[in-house]
Amino acid sequence: MATEADADDAETPDTYEQFRAHVEQLTYVGDAAGVLQWDQEVMMPDEGTPARSKQSAALSTLSHDLLTDDDVAEWLDELEGSDLDPEREAVVREIRRQHDRAAKVPSDLVQRISEATSNALPVWKEAKAEDDFEIYADTLEELVQLKREYAEAIDPDRDPYAVLFEEYEPYLGLDTAEAALEDLRDTLVPLIDDIKDSDVTLADPFAGGSYDEASQEDLVRSALDYLGYDWDRGRLDTAPHPFSTGTQFDARVTTRFDPEDPLGALSSTIHEFGHATYTLGLPDEHYGTPLGESRDLSVHESQSRLWENHVGRSRPFWEGFAPTVEDHLATSATPREYYEAANTVHPDNCIRVEADELTYHMHIVLRFEIERDLIHGDLDVSEVPQVWNDKMEEYLGVRPETDAEGCLQDIHWSHGSFGYFPTYSLGSVLAAQLFAAAEDDIGDLDGQLRDGEFDDLHEWLTDNVHSHGARYETDDLIEEATGEPFTADYFLEYAESKYRDLYDCYSNN
Amino acid sequence: MATEADADDAETPDTYEQFRAHVEQLTYVGDAAGVLQWDQEVMMPDEGTPARSKQSAALSTLSHDLLTDDDVAEWLDELEGSDLDPEREAVVREIRRQHDRAAKVPSDLVQRISEATSNALPVWKEAKAEDDFEIYADTLEELVQLKREYAEAIDPDRDPYAVLFEEYEPYLGLDTAEAALEDLRDTLVPLIDDIKDSDVTLADPFAGGSYDEASQEDLVRSALDYLGYDWDRGRLDTAPHPFSTGTQFDARVTTRFDPEDPLGALSSTIHEFGHATYTLGLPDEHYGTPLGESRDLSVHESQSRLWENHVGRSRPFWEGFAPTVEDHLATSATPREYYEAANTVHPDNCIRVEADELTYHMHIVLRFEIERDLIHGDLDVSEVPQVWNDKMEEYLGVRPETDAEGCLQDIHWSHGSFGYFPTYSLGSVLAAQLFAAAEDDIGDLDGQLRDGEFDDLHEWLTDNVHSHGARYETDDLIEEATGEPFTADYFLEYAESKYRDLYDCYSNN
Repeated sequence: MATEADADDAETPDTYEQFRAHVEQLTYVGDAAGVLQWDQEVMMPDEGTPARSKQSAALSTLSHDLLTDDDVAEWLDELEGSDLDPEREAVVREIRRQHDRAAKVPSDLVQRISEATSNALPVWKEAKAEDDFEIYADTLEELVQLKREYAEAIDPDRDPYAVLFEEYEPYLGLDTAEAALEDLRDTLVPLIDDIKDSDVTLADPFAGGSYDEASQEDLVRSALDYLGYDWDRGRLDTAPHPFSTGTQFDARVTTRFDPEDPLGALSSTIHEFGHATYTLGLPDEHYGTPLGESRDLSVHESQSRLWENHVGRSRPFWEGFAPTVEDHLATSATPREYYEAANTVHPDNCIRVEADELTYHMHIVLRFEIERDLIHGDLDVSEVPQVWNDKMEEYLGVRPETDAEGCLQDIHWSHGSFGYFPTYSLGSVLAAQLFAAAEDDIGDLDGQLRDGEFDDLHEWLTDNVHSHGARYETDDLIEEATGEPFTADYFLEYAESKYRDLYDCYSNN
Repeated sequence: MATEADADDAETPDTYEQFRAHVEQLTYVGDAAGVLQWDQEVMMPDEGTPARSKQSAALSTLSHDLLTDDDVAEWLDELEGSDLDPEREAVVREIRRQHDRAAKVPSDLVQRISEATSNALPVWKEAKAEDDFEIYADTLEELVQLKREYAEAIDPDRDPYAVLFEEYEPYLGLDTAEAALEDLRDTLVPLIDDIKDSDVTLADPFAGGSYDEASQEDLVRSALDYLGYDWDRGRLDTAPHPFSTGTQFDARVTTRFDPEDPLGALSSTIHEFGHATYTLGLPDEHYGTPLGESRDLSVHESQSRLWENHVGRSRPFWEGFAPTVEDHLATSATPREYYEAANTVHPDNCIRVEADELTYHMHIVLRFEIERDLIHGDLDVSEVPQVWNDKMEEYLGVRPETDAEGCLQDIHWSHGSFGYFPTYSLGSVLAAQLFAAAEDDIGDLDGQLRDGEFDDLHEWLTDNVHSHGARYETDDLIEEATGEPFTADYFLEYAESKYRDLYDCYSNN
């Protein structure tokens, strides 16, 4: 006999089903926008931009409307008051966070930010081309102000930089991130210093050579085969700025080729393969809700960095993969020499996207400190070039000769992305922690990498990371996967051991 | 001083602006769906379908919701009661028609049709593979019933087939279409008969050769260059079923290659080029409303057929283009011989998509007569195979040996498309009428085609057809462009003269 309580219980699934169907629409529209974006970067003819901008903006508006719909607020309220299983609870938690952030920002502010970032791009490009920060200063000031306003709309009582950071990494916490970045700075600055003092010169079997695009493309396709990329659910194309995008049914990789730097194409391709592999490991049956979506930027970056660095820049990988390189590029060297070439440190490089595995993080720490201080009002926009160059000197011992090679080099701030940079380094830190846990569980992972066997690693990552989608908050996911909280220890140990060995600089400490 | 009347007048632009912004969103979402469709046919990896179906369905739902929104009904009512300039009036007219059709069909019927067509596809494929119409009969019956219901929902007082036909060609009128198709049948059946009796065998410089895909691709790219395709606003790819899609900023062409039939790839590419050229000629400044969109299927098909047949199958074209073919395919023949190869009639062919310019129309007349009678209830589904084969015998003198080569060959009915087939022939008819008018206006068009000069023809088509978007109703557009109403006379004259000359069968009449 049905009681009133039964009837109430029975209502919950209905609400949840309605809610889920709505969330699925939101996902599908977002993924459609991703297809348009991929097409724009990879396939679209030059003059397609005006129409594509309108199409993408329309999908963005529809997504925003779906997310901030009054129905969503009502469903969330009702579902939060009911007894849900953990999966549904996770979906409600994720959508609540997205809904609140979107709903709290007034649409006129969204509009102003959208216009300001559109306007900022050509100004930034001109400033960079002219090597004149003055051209860009007012624009940067406006963007900082707008993003402060944005953070205040979301939560006026909290550190605005923390609020912005959560846009990209909602669950690790800014304090944790800041502590990890400080650890990196404190350990890597002296390590890089020792490397600069080292007498060791690493091998470079590619030096002086020129490698045609067709051979390089064959090489990176072979690398994707070798690592286990599923071509039935992906494809490889070229793009000016390599990226990966898609769903668990179709996750695509892009790369680019420089005739003199085949290792650049290889590592960039393996990086994007890592991203795509995460996406392809998400559960099919949850496609449409956060249970079928990846966790945020740090976790995504951990997957790309794990494959790029812990696999693709490892000694055992090169022991297995060297013949493939020689097949395609007709080079000749020992695995050790390829390994050295893949891990050469260039402290005199000023450009983040060209940085090696190690110095990269100093570029990030610098940007993090500057953008945090800008948002806090502790640093004036006019001081940015000076502070940038001072920090470059402090952290890497090199001073950019121009602002184009200094504070004007990145597009991120012009996109309004403040709080994004740290996730790059957090991803590396997490990659090391996850790789160490995988090694522990798998046993002879080095031997497998040497033999070109990646199944156990794929399985470990799928079981412990990919298959959970966004079910766990980031910190919980890390603890579930590795048995301990997020920590920079593994990365620092890895970096110290690998690079002090390569540069024979144990004694300098 | 503002009076009340002034205030009322001032309200109209505001309403129109709101209405236009909404219509633009609708267009942008539709065009986004077009990008997804292109990607699915051309780029998507095999296993991407489940996610893509969801994404496309979500955009389709959003489009439907935008079109049937209550606001749209209110804006339309208000705007129809106000004094609009002719351009705005045209936008209101087009959206009124689309809105009414969409709003009148209950969403559960839309859903049932969507499910029935999804389910129909595998059944049709199986029936075709098994060559067993029985497998498909109930499915076809259901589709006929559903489309009758659909037509009745839109207008219960009119001929349901006319209502369905208007989905694809809203302004020519079924009577006009029917008269044209009867003219085609009455003139072409005896012409084809005479051709069959002719002793003439046309040249085939491609016979027995095999042409690799790379050479064929170079050839069709050269053809697109030759005809003036704007690569900055387009691209060429391969697809199993060639099509063209896009906007005035980005209109893409696809083709396919058969090693033994390079003329097939060439004519198919030129056909799609004609479609893309229409799209590229639409006015940029009206992108987003019907003023920046093409007229319906007959007009679109007229553009593809004009370039495919009146240009690409013409004697003067081959006089200019033969050397390009020889460059790429290493054939050797006179222009006349290439011209003959491009115009060979095959009355014994049973497959529509492989039909020549002439017999093609008998395939269409047959389908039109059968689908019209099915919708009217004058023909039972079980009778379709017999009637199909009888008509094939009557019109072309050939009887399909199997239903797979007969009434199971086309996908259209499984898509729920009844009333679509006639637009193929109406497009050819209109192509001839437009081409005759262009010849009249330009003067020595033959000489230009011989010299590979297409600027005047492009300009004439842009001025008289493309640039108007959907501003004029189809019949008015034709009258504006050609000075007379839609007529099959030009096509019939063209067909009679061209093919009686080729087959030397004037005397048989």
